[in-house]
Amino acid sequence: MAVVFTSVQGSYTEGYDETAERMETLAARQPGYLGIDSARDPRSGLGITVSYWRTEQDALAWKRVAEHVDAQRRGKERWYAHYAVHIATVTRAYSFDRNQ
Amino acid sequence: MAVVFTSVQGSYTEGYDETAERMETLAARQPGYLGIDSARDPRSGLGITVSYWRTEQDALAWKRVAEHVDAQRRGKERWYAHYAVHIATVTRAYSFDRNQ
Repeated sequence: MAVVFTSVQGSYTEGYDETAERMETLAARQPGYLGIDSARDPRSGLGITVSYWRTEQDALAWKRVAEHVDAQRRGKERWYAHYAVHIATVTRAYSFDRNQ
Repeated sequence: MAVVFTSVQGSYTEGYDETAERMETLAARQPGYLGIDSARDPRSGLGITVSYWRTEQDALAWKRVAEHVDAQRRGKERWYAHYAVHIATVTRAYSFDRNQ
């Protein structure tokens, strides 16, 4: 599973970076966690975080972890002007490394 | 469908931004195109582009557009140290807007 979280920050950003980092650490301890990639573009303010999970249940379990629920609440109240979440089943994947 | 393209740039970046912009313009003209989100983090050098398509055939057709094939070739030869592509079927989606 891939969970694609696309967000636009508001003007208030205090505490955001620490919370985002803490959430990445916490997520990595969850059952079924396969990886996370995150990028925020300073020009557009658009951020994309993609987390990968073994099953949809694993992704849902992470959504419901108490500390994560609290971070989601603060995200809505303080930090995000907009966000969208797409939950998707990965059907194919491939990669390229220059030095392989 | 969501196509998640995660990439790490190499040190040579000449021509990259123009090509990336051109590809976003071209993609938007393709049948079945639903949208694209892109962010590159200047600290980590990690970029994530997620394009959304009505069907897997639409996503595949875009992969095979001649000008895009040429850009993919230049990406491998010049710009990317690493990339990964995950093709995924979106099963659920939701969003939040502060001012709604």
